[in-house]
Amino acid sequence: MSKYTYLKEQVYEANMEIPRENLAIVTFGNVSGIDREAGVIAIKPSGVPYHKLRVEDIVLLDLENQVVEGNMRPSSDTKTHTLLYKHFPSIGGVCHTHSTYAVAWAQAIRAIPNLGTTHADHLTSAVPVTEVMSDEMIQRDYELETGNQILDLFAGGKLNYEETEMVLVACHGPFTWGKDPAKAVYNSVVLEEIAKMAYLTLHINPSAQTIKQGLIDKHYFRKHGKDAYYGQGC
Amino acid sequence: MSKYTYLKEQVYEANMEIPRENLAIVTFGNVSGIDREAGVIAIKPSGVPYHKLRVEDIVLLDLENQVVEGNMRPSSDTKTHTLLYKHFPSIGGVCHTHSTYAVAWAQAIRAIPNLGTTHADHLTSAVPVTEVMSDEMIQRDYELETGNQILDLFAGGKLNYEETEMVLVACHGPFTWGKDPAKAVYNSVVLEEIAKMAYLTLHINPSAQTIKQGLIDKHYFRKHGKDAYYGQGC
Amino acid sequence: MSKYTYLKEQVYEANMEIPRENLAIVTFGNVSGIDREAGVIAIKPSGVPYHKLRVEDIVLLDLENQVVEGNMRPSSDTKTHTLLYKHFPSIGGVCHTHSTYAVAWAQAIRAIPNLGTTHADHLTSAVPVTEVMSDEMIQRDYELETGNQILDLFAGGKLNYEETEMVLVACHGPFTWGKDPAKAVYNSVVLEEIAKMAYLTLHINPSAQTIKQGLIDKHYFRKHGKDAYYGQGC
Amino acid sequence: MSKYTYLKEQVYEANMEIPRENLAIVTFGNVSGIDREAGVIAIKPSGVPYHKLRVEDIVLLDLENQVVEGNMRPSSDTKTHTLLYKHFPSIGGVCHTHSTYAVAWAQAIRAIPNLGTTHADHLTSAVPVTEVMSDEMIQRDYELETGNQILDLFAGGKLNYEETEMVLVACHGPFTWGKDPAKAVYNSVVLEEIAKMAYLTLHINPSAQTIKQGLIDKHYFRKHGKDAYYGQGC
Repeated sequence: MSKYTYLKEQVYEANMEIPRENLAIVTFGNVSGIDREAGVIAIKPSGVPYHKLRVEDIVLLDLENQVVEGNMRPSSDTKTHTLLYKHFPSIGGVCHTHSTYAVAWAQAIRAIPNLGTTHADHLTSAVPVTEVMSDEMIQRDYELETGNQILDLFAGGKLNYEETEMVLVACHGPFTWGKDPAKAVYNSVVLEEIAKMAYLTLHINPSAQTIKQGLIDKHYFRKHGKDAYYGQGC
Repeated sequence: MSKYTYLKEQVYEANMEIPRENLAIVTFGNVSGIDREAGVIAIKPSGVPYHKLRVEDIVLLDLENQVVEGNMRPSSDTKTHTLLYKHFPSIGGVCHTHSTYAVAWAQAIRAIPNLGTTHADHLTSAVPVTEVMSDEMIQRDYELETGNQILDLFAGGKLNYEETEMVLVACHGPFTWGKDPAKAVYNSVVLEEIAKMAYLTLHINPSAQTIKQGLIDKHYFRKHGKDAYYGQGC
Repeated sequence: MSKYTYLKEQVYEANMEIPRENLAIVTFGNVSGIDREAGVIAIKPSGVPYHKLRVEDIVLLDLENQVVEGNMRPSSDTKTHTLLYKHFPSIGGVCHTHSTYAVAWAQAIRAIPNLGTTHADHLTSAVPVTEVMSDEMIQRDYELETGNQILDLFAGGKLNYEETEMVLVACHGPFTWGKDPAKAVYNSVVLEEIAKMAYLTLHINPSAQTIKQGLIDKHYFRKHGKDAYYGQGC
Repeated sequence: MSKYTYLKEQVYEANMEIPRENLAIVTFGNVSGIDREAGVIAIKPSGVPYHKLRVEDIVLLDLENQVVEGNMRPSSDTKTHTLLYKHFPSIGGVCHTHSTYAVAWAQAIRAIPNLGTTHADHLTSAVPVTEVMSDEMIQRDYELETGNQILDLFAGGKLNYEETEMVLVACHGPFTWGKDPAKAVYNSVVLEEIAKMAYLTLHINPSAQTIKQGLIDKHYFRKHGKDAYYGQGC
């Protein structure tokens, strides 16, 4: 039995949330997790439908994308996940879905503005969207460059990956992350909901604006940081 | 065994309607109930996912927000609930959700106009929306001030809390109430449906108007008051 | 045991399709059926939630709205059903729902144009919408006048109730009918779907037009009349 | 026992995906499959609700639309399926649904533009839409002419049926195909999702454009052709 079975189980469970939460149809989407000490990443195999996925199908790789354990080909998006783990040192899970409303914002190449407290409970910024990828980057090493675009966006926009745990890749769809695989998927669930709420809000009132900074901070910091009083403190 | 077990059970059951009726994702939303004679309020603990919630987790407080029974931290929205119980003396339950269409109207800072009989069966007014909260109120005592904004809206708009059992808090979402916790959640289910119907109506006919007063009264009073003939009279 | 148990069972089953097909929330909606020889109508009792409804709760009335059997109060919409049975002699069931998209068109006071073959498979006309009711009619005998408005619409528009088995009551919602209670509910399911399709179509192409008469007739008459070749001929 | 039981079972299973995936209500939709060596097509019988459909109800026909086996009338859309099998020699299954968003685009008589990678993962072109059928064609042999319109569209638009496995028939709805009945239904599931995503995208950003050719090719060819690296290579 693999010494990484616990990690495979975590990643398996997180992947199975994708169909349960209607975050993607058929085989779309993938979740990974990392054992930071061992430098081992576990990820969904490529193109496997969720109802056929088994714990033992989860593929293990190192941070250079070399397979460590498993007989299946890893997700075609693996290099994007790996790059995020390398540059976002405190994250433990990454999730990529094709959830409908988040994809629509990504295809519209529009950041999702922070229009209410459901959004502000989870992040202070808009949900940012990358630039459209250049032809050179597409041809070079597409999935690696997808990761580079996310890193460039966070660097250029002075975004903190620990406070903004989600991004839209232009013309493609969302990536989310968090302290573990379960939190990464949780963020995809939240993102889809705020993407839908923002869509509807702007169709009721096209001039709806980002809410005031005081309200954003109040909601974000009642859930995050040392003065948080939401939840059970665990 | 607690002498308030019956109240905890009522409040537990009402909270479990939130995921069943798709009124909120993950841990969002909370329902409370009150024993008026004892002055005891029962409410969902903060940040607990519904599939893990147990009857014994429901927290008991007095009207000054002091915990009377329970090991968990109460909902972060507790002070809003308490204030409503203090000022709306005939209500027995309060419900707060982040249901998608109701939140969209709240984020759009638009009252939901009374566009048809589904709405008029439940309230004669529009579903009112509060003002955006001032920075001073946000910083002072946020959840208490949320309650104050609802009270001010009802006082200023000459709204009767027994006839209009729902409100939208601007940039946030809905609160509903009723004679008991079950009725409070029922009103959240109805609100989400009329919020969706109003959204669609105005996208079919942008000049749709509030229906005539005679039709509003006919529908409201066939369900409410001494001449009601809807239902089984119980 | 009632000699009309078969009718109560048919009507019970048809009513239970309303929540199964998501045609209405909580207690909204009602289906009736008629035994033409006996002149007996069976209908849902008023205000009973579907998960509590039992076969024996179905109320029996005559065509003058007098209760023949049953301890519960019949649907508050009973007089609308009765009037339709009186004037549409070949129908055996009537269904009223508050399904979301059909209600939105009714609240928008817009007929649903015949935009495609899903619609034309079921009716050749638009789904018609009544006038807004006058204050005099509302005050006189509301549910009876709702029926009168439907009859006036069909008479004035030269609509054939056997070819157009559905209508939108302005500011209220849909009524549908058919040869038996099951067909009446089936028509409500179809109506909700074509109401949604028409909504979306006009939001993709605001100048979408009623399809050509030849295509309407082709689809309608491959399913209806002596030359029909859809289905198994039963 | 029929020597084509394996084919009937495949076609039965593929048809049952239609209600499971919410691709059509009531009896709408139909899937067929072909045994190329025997020249035998299996298809859903006309007008049968899915919950009553049985393996033995699947009808067998030859390529001239003559029934080879089965007591029921085949789908009224049979001649469209047959014509596609005749002219698209490598396909093994055809699926027709009335899925909501795909129908809306068909009723709007608008091709679905390729707005993102979910679309590009499956086809490089837009989802094409036929011309509105002439009155002469409607009256001649409607279902055959529906097939002819698809063939004309592919010939005129220089579309490759192996790369574009889906089409919208104007004012009607989608047809999809693939190497077997299961793949044909899979394509209907994907089509409904990209139809919804495109609808939402254009309502967030009305000037959203077809994505760049390099991105289309990257996504399409990582899943298709000799250099594909998505999936498990089977």
